[in-house]
Amino acid sequence: MAPVDGQVGVRLRLDVSYDGTEFSGWASQPARRTVQESVEAALAMALRLTATRLTVAGRTDAGVHARGQVCHVDVPLSALDGREPAWLATRLSRALPDDVRVHRVSVAPAGFDARFSAAWRRYAYRICDDPANADPLTRRHVLAWPHRLDETAMNAAASSLVGEHDFGAFCKRRAGATTVRSLSELEWSRAGHLVTARVVADAFCHHMVRALVGCLLVVGEGKRPVDWPAAVLRGGHHDSRVTVIPATGLTLEEVGYPDDSQLATRARQSRAPRTST
Amino acid sequence: MAPVDGQVGVRLRLDVSYDGTEFSGWASQPARRTVQESVEAALAMALRLTATRLTVAGRTDAGVHARGQVCHVDVPLSALDGREPAWLATRLSRALPDDVRVHRVSVAPAGFDARFSAAWRRYAYRICDDPANADPLTRRHVLAWPHRLDETAMNAAASSLVGEHDFGAFCKRRAGATTVRSLSELEWSRAGHLVTARVVADAFCHHMVRALVGCLLVVGEGKRPVDWPAAVLRGGHHDSRVTVIPATGLTLEEVGYPDDSQLATRARQSRAPRTST
Repeated sequence: MAPVDGQVGVRLRLDVSYDGTEFSGWASQPARRTVQESVEAALAMALRLTATRLTVAGRTDAGVHARGQVCHVDVPLSALDGREPAWLATRLSRALPDDVRVHRVSVAPAGFDARFSAAWRRYAYRICDDPANADPLTRRHVLAWPHRLDETAMNAAASSLVGEHDFGAFCKRRAGATTVRSLSELEWSRAGHLVTARVVADAFCHHMVRALVGCLLVVGEGKRPVDWPAAVLRGGHHDSRVTVIPATGLTLEEVGYPDDSQLATRARQSRAPRTST
Repeated sequence: MAPVDGQVGVRLRLDVSYDGTEFSGWASQPARRTVQESVEAALAMALRLTATRLTVAGRTDAGVHARGQVCHVDVPLSALDGREPAWLATRLSRALPDDVRVHRVSVAPAGFDARFSAAWRRYAYRICDDPANADPLTRRHVLAWPHRLDETAMNAAASSLVGEHDFGAFCKRRAGATTVRSLSELEWSRAGHLVTARVVADAFCHHMVRALVGCLLVVGEGKRPVDWPAAVLRGGHHDSRVTVIPATGLTLEEVGYPDDSQLATRARQSRAPRTST
């Protein structure tokens, strides 16, 4: 175990869920209510530490929810005082506000890094396409959309986006950072008035899921042809015709990690800069 | 059609859902935010009427939710101006706050009275019995309970409460009003950490579902034997050992009506005072 503050340390994996509605996203910001700051404060209190620092798999934006967020923290072994990590989950459930839960705490396997070991992230985007039938009990994580959507057309359009591509058309580009990503799934399903996109990639650029969904909704409404999103993708740079839709419907559902034996290797790969192919 | 304000009238059935968290219940009260007042105000605005008056199937308390609430309103036929009732549902979805939806508007069949024609009401009470695993996205309608519950014991206890009984032990008694009710279903089911009670009766007294659930939870925690709720029922009067649990987990899921030909008969029966048998 790596030392923490000169003491024997232990890396804990925390599985976290939250209703993002009243958070200014995951990442700490001055004078804003963030998930990171809430969990770090609860951890520090529970473990009687002056400070803790979380590393997260998905830095979700303001308003984005999570059911399967993963982060890690290094703490001195003495802070656990011989208690099982599960004790910490129960203790945190009392210390945290009710819009964020740490539903599992475990000792991280060797080589585990919540961010760099992650092999894939899975998001869901949920839409009710009949506003009169929107369920008030799910309104904080299901977007009400005023027009009927054709999920068959959206799936036909989505299939041409799957694969490794430069997703620059759907991202806020940052200088020096690649926008090449490997999108392994993008599929719509319907249950009554609820239309859900399942989106899986190795990683996502900023705003990428919301821009992909926004682009496909235009097809779902019949305003653009099925082959339009593929043309936008080929354009390769930010396209002003693509709308980043609201965070409301977006939930980080799951983060996938390789077998324990591959965690360190995966982390090294993720840290290496990817070059566009 | 009965006249409304001296004009030809039409009775509309409205199917309503709401997140009760920020409402002081269904029924209008001075200086309180209520579902009734919100829907009546939106209806008056949509139909350009100075006032409307709703009659409801289930007068839910503060904090109680609904997915299948039913009410009716009598309006002058001219207010619809030849438009289909479905138009009104769409119009109301724009006029209402997002924690209440009128998901269906239809012309009520002859003899229909939302309150007195109702044959049964179905409620669900939802509990997560592992607070660390509570889903933040459903926390407004699922109660987090700090102890594991034994749903088999709760079902054994619940079975002795089903039937026509004087439920005075589980009600706030009102002078001159019977507390005899016919409870046709009371059953618990589990899905992971989510434990749900399905409760159906012809009608419910005030606080009855929440007192029944509160009584069964004591059995579910193992603090009282399985035959205790039946003993409380036989006691026949308000029992201070029974806790009325919070409104959070309670949702009115459905109101049942007889065939159209039986609506008026059912309304006459409901209006007649029931005598204890």
